Formats: sequence, structure tokens, C-alpha cells
Amino acid sequence: MRITFIGAGNLATHLSKALIHSGHTIAQVYSHTYANAELLGQLVSAEPVCDIADIRGGADVYIFAVKDAVLESLSQELYKRLSATETPLFIHTAGSMSIDTLPAPRRGVLYPMQTFSKSREVDFGIIPVFIEAKTSDDMAVVRALAESVSTKVYEMSSDDRKYLHLSAVFFCNFANHCYRLGESVLAQHQIPFDVMLPLIDETARKVHVLSPHQAQTGPAVRWDSNVIDRHIHLLEGLDDMQSIYKLLSQSIHNDQL
Amino acid sequence: MRITFIGAGNLATHLSKALIHSGHTIAQVYSHTYANAELLGQLVSAEPVCDIADIRGGADVYIFAVKDAVLESLSQELYKRLSATETPLFIHTAGSMSIDTLPAPRRGVLYPMQTFSKSREVDFGIIPVFIEAKTSDDMAVVRALAESVSTKVYEMSSDDRKYLHLSAVFFCNFANHCYRLGESVLAQHQIPFDVMLPLIDETARKVHVLSPHQAQTGPAVRWDSNVIDRHIHLLEGLDDMQSIYKLLSQSIHNDQL
Repeated sequence: MRITFIGAGNLATHLSKALIHSGHTIAQVYSHTYANAELLGQLVSAEPVCDIADIRGGADVYIFAVKDAVLESLSQELYKRLSATETPLFIHTAGSMSIDTLPAPRRGVLYPMQTFSKSREVDFGIIPVFIEAKTSDDMAVVRALAESVSTKVYEMSSDDRKYLHLSAVFFCNFANHCYRLGESVLAQHQIPFDVMLPLIDETARKVHVLSPHQAQTGPAVRWDSNVIDRHIHLLEGLDDMQSIYKLLSQSIHNDQL
Repeated sequence: MRITFIGAGNLATHLSKALIHSGHTIAQVYSHTYANAELLGQLVSAEPVCDIADIRGGADVYIFAVKDAVLESLSQELYKRLSATETPLFIHTAGSMSIDTLPAPRRGVLYPMQTFSKSREVDFGIIPVFIEAKTSDDMAVVRALAESVSTKVYEMSSDDRKYLHLSAVFFCNFANHCYRLGESVLAQHQIPFDVMLPLIDETARKVHVLSPHQAQTGPAVRWDSNVIDRHIHLLEGLDDMQSIYKLLSQSIHNDQL
């Protein structure tokens, strides 16, 4: 397919590279910042543009991989221009946004659920991709696109997807922030971060075979108040971390009741 | 070495199995509950006992793998009995307890930092083990024991170890609880937990090459208040989760300032 990308951030970069790799063509890459459009344009052999007015029609699909806050306005602006001459298929990639944010009658969603950092390569083929469309014809297009980059493609409604996205914040961003807070304790005591990697890995691996509830260990699940009190004391002065420690320990405990 | 185990829980089970595997002998296993002592005794060919008075002297080391709350009293009770005829080497395995909790002049610590569940086998050889002793002779014994089961052995003081243990709660128990909370959202919407495994795995793998601070993604790090507000709204009525969402998002945001 011939694809135009609106957006040149982490997700746009990883997704457009995976699409190129599967034999698709990227016609143009739009970014508000020309340097970003140019950078990604070079990676995927696409024309960089930084003005919506420079986006040409004729693409099979227009994929929006932009900040949620600008998705509606950007897609409306582009739709106004293109709808004079074609009935474009618009697809967005945002986990938490409804399919109906897009103005085009032919609209879809292709949400690859992963944590993307530009500096890190990912194996796109194992990333779960959640898709949605309004008609079976458009669903076939969205599905073909998704299946060309991933083996794990699921249809999901906008309503379920917003809860999926919410849960992903817990699984990924909040778990990673627990790593970050733990790291800050290690750093204060000159303990190298690397010693934690086996524990981090085993904690993640365990939930492949046990539920998180079954997998839980530590002072809070045993409600070992001696240890909990000592830990809270060690966090004296670190108000954020002390509050987080108390709230999460109590929540783990409540989960046992 | 000839070892007696005080304790028959998750840690005692995994450690004693690893020690047996390395050619050591377990003489006796003590548990307050005879059935537990018997179960582990059968696994490691050791005599099960449920009364401290039945623990014989003559072991090279006595390893305490018991709840923190009973470590002091149990070790004192055993030391009173054994000190009449020998100078026993007592070792405990508790991350958050000082070496000086033990009454024996010959005392040490061997803390394997991992999350142990009885139903799950672990590769003990890659578990970081933190050791401590009062004399170089006893350190040599503790080190030999530790190195017989793991390739990652580090000397660490009781003071540093309590911070290590505190940080492990964040890396393991709190990260796992984030999985648990995310899972509860999925379950309410009949979304299978398995779809999250690639995200969980990538979140853990990322911090092998990026710091947790560099690895962070999602609405809180971008401070995308539209998404954050929608998520908080979706958690209406789930007071615990809503508080945790707000506190962790704010803490991620503060970390950017």
C-alpha cells in the first residue's frame, strides 16, 4: 500500500519502519517540525513536509501517529483538503482515542501496544496490535496493514480499548516508575543498578505462569509490620516515596482480604 | 558442608534445594509446623523437627530462613542450647535484618535477592547473593556456601543491605502490584491478560539498556492532561486505584522537572 504518515515521533518511526520492511511505500511524512519530518523521511524514503497544505492526495491510507491533543484538529484540517477529490481512509494509532475522533467516514484504528523509545529497536512482529474500522471493507484494509507488521492482531472497540490503554499505563509506565524509585534508593547508597536485573526479570517472567496475585511476595503481602515500619522510616524526608510506599503496601494488603 | 535449616518456607525450600544440588548435606529442617518440616525434609533428605529442643549440634552452619519477626527469638533459643557444647556459625537470609540480630559470636548473612514462590522453579545460579560476616574465617565459610549456589556473590554491610531490600520492594513487589492493578482493569472488560505479556517483557528488558528515567513513556511523562484526566475519570469509584494513579503520575511528572 501507499501510505502517508502524519507524525514523526517514536511510534511513527517504529511503525513506518515496520511497514517499509513489509513492502509498503511511505509517500510523505508530515511533522510540525521540519527537521523531524526530514529525519524520518530519510529513514523510510518518504518526502518530508511540515505544512498540512503540502500533503498530496492519492495515498491508500493516511496514518495519524500524533499527540492525542492535536489528533482531532490535524485530521479535520487534512480531511477538508482531501475530501474535495477523494474519500480517504484515515487511521489513527492512539490507544485512548475513539475511532470517531477522526472526521473521515472511512476511518479506522491501528493501535500497537508497546513502549517505544527512539533509541531502542523493537521486534514489531510480536507486538499486539488492536484494530477497529467502520465497515468490513475498511476493516479488511486495516487488518491487512496490521497483519503485515505483527502476528498478534485483535479487533477491539474504542470503548474496550480505552480500558486496555489505562491498564497498559499500570503494566508499563507505573511498573517502570517503580524501577525508577528503587533505582534512586540504590544510587543514594552507591549500589550498582545491575544487581537488580535478575529480580526485575524474574518478576516479569513469573506472571507468564502465575497470576500477579499468586506471584506476589514481600512484606506487604505478609503484612510484616516490623519490616514495613522500618522501610517507612528509611524513607523519612522523601515525602513522595513514603506516600507511594504506604499506598501501594496498603493496596497489596487490601488485595489479600 | 553439613547444614541445619531453621525454616521451611519459600526461601528455605529454594535455597536448601540449591545447596543439596551443590553437594552439601542438610541434616535437619525445623519448622514450627511439622507438616512443613516434613515436606521440605523429604525434598532434601533431612530429618524434620518442629521443636527447637530437637535440633542437634554438630552442623557446620545453621541457616535461619524464617519470618523476620521470629528470627531473634528463635536464634536466641537455639544458641542457648548449642553454646554449651560448641561455637556454632549462625547465618540468616533476611534482606532487611542486621547481622547483629543473631546472638552467636560467629554470625553471618546470606541474602539471595529474588522473589520466591514455592510453585515456581528458579535458576539459583543467576540470583545475586549478598553476604556478610564478622571475621574473615567466617566470611570464607559464608562465601564458599554462597558461591556454591550462585555466580553473583557480593559482600554488603547490614546498613547498605537494608536499603537494597527497600529498593527490591519497589522493583519487585510494587512493580508486580502494578501488574495486579492493570489486570483488574482488563478482567472487568473481559480482555485476556496474555495480551499484556509483550509489554511487560519489553518494559523489563528496556532497563537492561536504558535507565528507568530514559525508558519512561506514556501520558504522565508527556504530562498529557487530556489522557490523564480521562484515565482518572475511568477509575471513578475505585478509590485505591484512582489515588495510586494520581500519585504515581504526579511522581513521574516531578521526576521530569
